[in-house]
Amino acid sequence: VRELLQNLQADERIILESVFWAGTPSRHELLLSTGFSKTKLNEAVANLIASGWLEEGELQDSRGGRPPLGLSFAPKLGYVIGVDLGATRVDVILSNVALEPIEVCHASIDVRSGPGTVMPMISKLIADLLESHHLEPDQVLSLGFGMPSPIEFETGILINPILMAGWEGFSLRDYFASSLEVPVAVDNDVNVMALGELWHTRINAPAQDRHENFLVVKLGTGIGAGIVARGEIYRGADGAAGDIGHNCVDPHGPRCVCGNFGCLELWAGANSIIQSATEAGRNAQSPAIAILLEKNGLLRKPYLLEKPGITIEDVARAAREGDHASNEIIQDAGSRIGQVLAGLVNFFNPARILIGGRVARIGPLMLSSIRQSVYARSLPLSTRALRIDYTRLGNESGMRGACALALLEAIRRPDLARL
Amino acid sequence: VRELLQNLQADERIILESVFWAGTPSRHELLLSTGFSKTKLNEAVANLIASGWLEEGELQDSRGGRPPLGLSFAPKLGYVIGVDLGATRVDVILSNVALEPIEVCHASIDVRSGPGTVMPMISKLIADLLESHHLEPDQVLSLGFGMPSPIEFETGILINPILMAGWEGFSLRDYFASSLEVPVAVDNDVNVMALGELWHTRINAPAQDRHENFLVVKLGTGIGAGIVARGEIYRGADGAAGDIGHNCVDPHGPRCVCGNFGCLELWAGANSIIQSATEAGRNAQSPAIAILLEKNGLLRKPYLLEKPGITIEDVARAAREGDHASNEIIQDAGSRIGQVLAGLVNFFNPARILIGGRVARIGPLMLSSIRQSVYARSLPLSTRALRIDYTRLGNESGMRGACALALLEAIRRPDLARL
Repeated sequence: VRELLQNLQADERIILESVFWAGTPSRHELLLSTGFSKTKLNEAVANLIASGWLEEGELQDSRGGRPPLGLSFAPKLGYVIGVDLGATRVDVILSNVALEPIEVCHASIDVRSGPGTVMPMISKLIADLLESHHLEPDQVLSLGFGMPSPIEFETGILINPILMAGWEGFSLRDYFASSLEVPVAVDNDVNVMALGELWHTRINAPAQDRHENFLVVKLGTGIGAGIVARGEIYRGADGAAGDIGHNCVDPHGPRCVCGNFGCLELWAGANSIIQSATEAGRNAQSPAIAILLEKNGLLRKPYLLEKPGITIEDVARAAREGDHASNEIIQDAGSRIGQVLAGLVNFFNPARILIGGRVARIGPLMLSSIRQSVYARSLPLSTRALRIDYTRLGNESGMRGACALALLEAIRRPDLARL
Repeated sequence: VRELLQNLQADERIILESVFWAGTPSRHELLLSTGFSKTKLNEAVANLIASGWLEEGELQDSRGGRPPLGLSFAPKLGYVIGVDLGATRVDVILSNVALEPIEVCHASIDVRSGPGTVMPMISKLIADLLESHHLEPDQVLSLGFGMPSPIEFETGILINPILMAGWEGFSLRDYFASSLEVPVAVDNDVNVMALGELWHTRINAPAQDRHENFLVVKLGTGIGAGIVARGEIYRGADGAAGDIGHNCVDPHGPRCVCGNFGCLELWAGANSIIQSATEAGRNAQSPAIAILLEKNGLLRKPYLLEKPGITIEDVARAAREGDHASNEIIQDAGSRIGQVLAGLVNFFNPARILIGGRVARIGPLMLSSIRQSVYARSLPLSTRALRIDYTRLGNESGMRGACALALLEAIRRPDLARL
């Protein structure tokens, strides 16, 4: 399958990218999106069908008459693998090239332990996935990675990874070129989520405005935004765009590890929420959390980042079961997130904001607090049509986005297949 | 000249736009930027020279050998007029189609008095400019407007103009179609500045990266940002992008007219600076301002927005002459602006921020306070290559941007010339 990728002609790449964004386009739709002549299109499509890239089937939503034919990626051509790496967990998904999920697996990791520890674990997860489906590495078209760090997009190298010192300058591409011999596309974790959401929106509503402007916000250990401007991922001048976790929400607030005062993550990052809940457990404001801390023998010990005794899921459960203090902590976090997003809504005027990440679904109050805070603080014109929702791909936004990235970049970039 | 505009072919429009962005491109450069064949390009260029749009001259920066020829707009073809409308003042500039300024004039206005009062004043300024150069309206290719309000860009209609109730739904295009019979392009005042800066940057460094990401920030009665994303003005989902004056800088701050607490304009808007300086004059912290208030008989009267007794220029002068209180007020304003911009730098990762508007040059501390605050509060990666400077076109950013808008939209949009 690697050879097929290397042999793609420029025209064929354009057609494959059109199919990628449209889901199952008819030839007529491809004529419009590529601007090719009928002859040129039909010839290239015939080649792509012959080489196994595309297949043609009846479209379902025809309105009488002979149903038009739709083109799509041929699932049997090969596979892509998406990896979503977070601070404490890695998710890996195997999909076919039609981007239909086949199997998901995950492992707990500590990203701070560096690539020497983390990468072999990821390699093992990938090897196990392939083995359990009797697949060889050369049936994998490409790998896509979402990394919790700024990325130099062209080279896929991590730059300035905060709290990930061992990863500075690490090249995922080189790592897999020498082990699996598979091309690798890498982007920041939130950009990957945004790509997944953009792809998912388009293939489900192909006729929609192609110049979407929206944000995907990931709430986890860190807080970041993926930006879609005029229908393309926006990465900024240094590939650092979307890094909003250290935006100031209160200049009189406490000092942050970054050196400034009152950063958003001090109230809304996963560790801050856990710390606040721990304190609420300790000072008898939260009986539910107190019970958990007691059980772990930590109720009378000071809070430690490395060993908090409770998880974000514990806080979520306490909140769902009606724990007042947990709900207040979540509401405050949501309100602070909303304050930052309100400023970004004034600035960027997105049509929608999609909220994802482990902390997004921590309790029913999170999304409603964010919404309330944004609508109260943004200017009326910018919120006239604004919608704020969960990511449409739910918890799979990151890994499915990584698969979308793997396929899209393999199609777009001839250099990627030259390992 | 209107007829010439209507008769432009699609290919000719593409060539003219390439010349617009490149300043004085050679034919070889036009081949690259348009993607046309040599025959097609030469034929269209010949037509454009014959019809008077373009002229061809020797390029100056040739390195020996026969100097290549450069194409540029023929100044004698006609004129464009740029109008930069602010809250209290309107600037009008007459340029030729090569965008060389010919004459500037301005008038004090109160934009809140509505289009019925303001528009006839603008018409009069335009008529006087034309008359003093013995020009007829039909020698004017188009008008460009920067308006202190969100704009529906396609139609040029004002939407939701805050504090400009009488302008809601007003169509500048209709107004001038019936009076001057000249096509009109309209955008938000800060977008117009951003377009002017983008155009100016490109024609002076044509070889530069075409995918610029930068911000232009206008400091005046209101505070707004013009956004250039991947080399194009970014307007957002509802044309409301860049409206950052009501971003929150302190949730514990005073209440703003918008209903929220701690908005940026409460410290850094022109009226807030004037009010703070007035208070400093009244409570003996600023002798310089006290003298001015005394002279106007307002030292013992309460501050009134409509009749403050001092202007922003008075505060600027006091600061330049070493008035401590005025400098502190400016420094605080700059620091708050920097806090908001730091958040936007984290989010948008621009390559540069250009500061303009009447309040930008209020005193030497303004720019340095903004810089200090941004560099201290933004994440290191985003500020690695960031530059913060004054707008390159200085105070003329708005009006010259309006001329650039007039010419660009006249070239791009066949519908504009159909009045």
